Amino acid sequence: MIPLEEALRRILDNLPSPATETIDSRSAHGRVLAEDLTATSEIPPFNKSAVDGYAVRSADISTPPVELRCAGESRAGSETRGQLGLGEAVAIMTGAPVPRGADAVQMIEKTRRSADGSRVTILSGVRAGENIIPEGSEASTGKVVLESGRYLGPAEVAILAIFGYRQVTVFRKPSVALTATGDELVEADQAPAPGQIRNSNAPSVAAQLKLLGLEAEYLGIASDDRAQIKRVILEGLRRDVLIMTGGVSVGAYDFVEEILREAGLEIIFSGVAIRPGKPTVFARRGDRIVFGLPGNPISTFVSFELFVRPALGRICGLAAAGLFRVQGRLSLGVGHKSERTSFIPARLSWSQDGWVIDPLPWKGSSDIIGFSRANGLLILPQDKKAMAEGERVEAVLLPDFWQRLTR
Amino acid sequence: MIPLEEALRRILDNLPSPATETIDSRSAHGRVLAEDLTATSEIPPFNKSAVDGYAVRSADISTPPVELRCAGESRAGSETRGQLGLGEAVAIMTGAPVPRGADAVQMIEKTRRSADGSRVTILSGVRAGENIIPEGSEASTGKVVLESGRYLGPAEVAILAIFGYRQVTVFRKPSVALTATGDELVEADQAPAPGQIRNSNAPSVAAQLKLLGLEAEYLGIASDDRAQIKRVILEGLRRDVLIMTGGVSVGAYDFVEEILREAGLEIIFSGVAIRPGKPTVFARRGDRIVFGLPGNPISTFVSFELFVRPALGRICGLAAAGLFRVQGRLSLGVGHKSERTSFIPARLSWSQDGWVIDPLPWKGSSDIIGFSRANGLLILPQDKKAMAEGERVEAVLLPDFWQRLTR
Repeated sequence: MIPLEEALRRILDNLPSPATETIDSRSAHGRVLAEDLTATSEIPPFNKSAVDGYAVRSADISTPPVELRCAGESRAGSETRGQLGLGEAVAIMTGAPVPRGADAVQMIEKTRRSADGSRVTILSGVRAGENIIPEGSEASTGKVVLESGRYLGPAEVAILAIFGYRQVTVFRKPSVALTATGDELVEADQAPAPGQIRNSNAPSVAAQLKLLGLEAEYLGIASDDRAQIKRVILEGLRRDVLIMTGGVSVGAYDFVEEILREAGLEIIFSGVAIRPGKPTVFARRGDRIVFGLPGNPISTFVSFELFVRPALGRICGLAAAGLFRVQGRLSLGVGHKSERTSFIPARLSWSQDGWVIDPLPWKGSSDIIGFSRANGLLILPQDKKAMAEGERVEAVLLPDFWQRLTR
Repeated sequence: MIPLEEALRRILDNLPSPATETIDSRSAHGRVLAEDLTATSEIPPFNKSAVDGYAVRSADISTPPVELRCAGESRAGSETRGQLGLGEAVAIMTGAPVPRGADAVQMIEKTRRSADGSRVTILSGVRAGENIIPEGSEASTGKVVLESGRYLGPAEVAILAIFGYRQVTVFRKPSVALTATGDELVEADQAPAPGQIRNSNAPSVAAQLKLLGLEAEYLGIASDDRAQIKRVILEGLRRDVLIMTGGVSVGAYDFVEEILREAGLEIIFSGVAIRPGKPTVFARRGDRIVFGLPGNPISTFVSFELFVRPALGRICGLAAAGLFRVQGRLSLGVGHKSERTSFIPARLSWSQDGWVIDPLPWKGSSDIIGFSRANGLLILPQDKKAMAEGERVEAVLLPDFWQRLTR
């Protein structure tokens, strides 16, 4: 058994080297950029009006009110044309090019147009440059606008569009295979015989992967049979990552670790000083990695979040792929047998004073129904037997924290 | 112009009544349950061992060490069989049924099997019930295990599988149409002529919708032409929700609000006392709603997060669909013209002492490149001219906050 931090370190040390691929920008949302992208043009591409109003020479209106002659209009989408003469104003729309000769725009609310439209009175003065966004002021051609490593969210997607990037190079998503082992398991759409239960790990791991933008190839249930487990491991090794649930404990039919060795994998660790999730196995063969997660639903869930998420997030290029850790006030005293660090289902809420962490009533590490109300996990360190109400404690937020909020 | 809170209230008061649909459970992840679901069987379905070890009568081993006769084994997936006699033990695996007659399980680490396997020495005693998860202790048949309104994340998906729910009734996703207006716009894959720019709002709004699990039908760019805008509005009203960008300001070619009225929509509000996002329009005709978002990329982005996200999240059944609001310490003094509440791009990080809120350097409300580094928005209230370094301020977190973390 190794400590959690050591397990995480070994995982990060044994990940395959990151690969990249070039994809259509229209599917770039949610990916991580693997190249620097530069401005392909000046932004804005012309001196642009920030408001609806009148383009003027600021010197002309230094002693307002001043009446100017209306010399046409500049609307969004039109080309910069003509030259503003002395004593002239041009009606201008937000986003439209400022005509040559004008050095400021007065907003429409501070103007009054004559009845016949031929003249406009500017009611207050403007500084030179006021309400004009100068050509190239937001980006100049060739300057890096998105660096390698940037997560591509909605605003970054907008930037790709602005500069006309049709393709971008991003970190490649790993291919993932998923299998569940256990003689007691039947699929969710089957009726369990006496002594059997439905397999819930494959659906929940698939959902956890989806939160990372990943989809797994499901290899089905393998029974507790050496030949069958070996077959499914070899099948899974055709993908970048194999996730197995069950078969990693110390029972007489827990073959997974042994067969991973037989299949030529190096066991990077087996057993972590946490609860739940202790028997987690992490193995590697070249660029392929295998996670063996303990089989009860909560152990599978927690092990995934603690080990698989940071690993796969890192392969996808995310800078901070682990769960977000915060400190807060415990609303209720809790205790545990203290030989391992415990992760206890909790509901976190934000108050003016900080995070409030409510440990949830649950019936232990197979009670997924009680566990499912959690939006975070309270961390009880190995060296503390109990923590009191009001004590400052640590917790991690689950990745779908927002959706799980109920206020 | 109405205050933000009033705008949000009016939106929530004018949403269509929630609709539901019954879907395959395999696509239930990310949806919100619209019915109560009950346990279809006892969980666990039998007295289940929590560990690998030996099922025993606790009274037999009250004075350990005690040697017992090995009377077979119970493995996961097998049926409960036989009856444990006096002085007997049965080897048992985690998750396997406890044989009748046994009232506890001793873990394998506290036992020693004889060389021929016929006997086992139990090295320490166990309480009655120890290491047994009683039948029905986590759920009893007919009891509600997931209530209407629950967000279906990975743990809830596991529960659907455990109870064999093949179909579930969830809140229906709204259908969404999306259009951008403006003579200055060309699509991202076109080369802009002088005075034109590429449309970045459709791609960024599509990405914002994707974070809600929604996909929009894109109706293309409408030029600043009454007939064309009317046509696209009527087309968009065939969906539950129409999102338009641009054309809502006070310029001579900002027709959207006027044409919405012509098309029989009631304008619920037009103009909100915020910056950016002031000209946002919200309109309704029966069960159809329309958002008119201001056209510059940041205004579109912020208006979507403040108005569209809570509305669509609510229609999808989410209890708390707005941005998550926190308080924290400002790392740098900021000021603004104070006639409206400002939302300023910021990077939020968590320190032991709470949130630290770093306002980002940016060049105003069209600088999407500067803005794109934000993982949250600092709120500068209308009634405050400036806020000092170290002052306690409010901010909201963007919905993809986690992915945007860089540490």
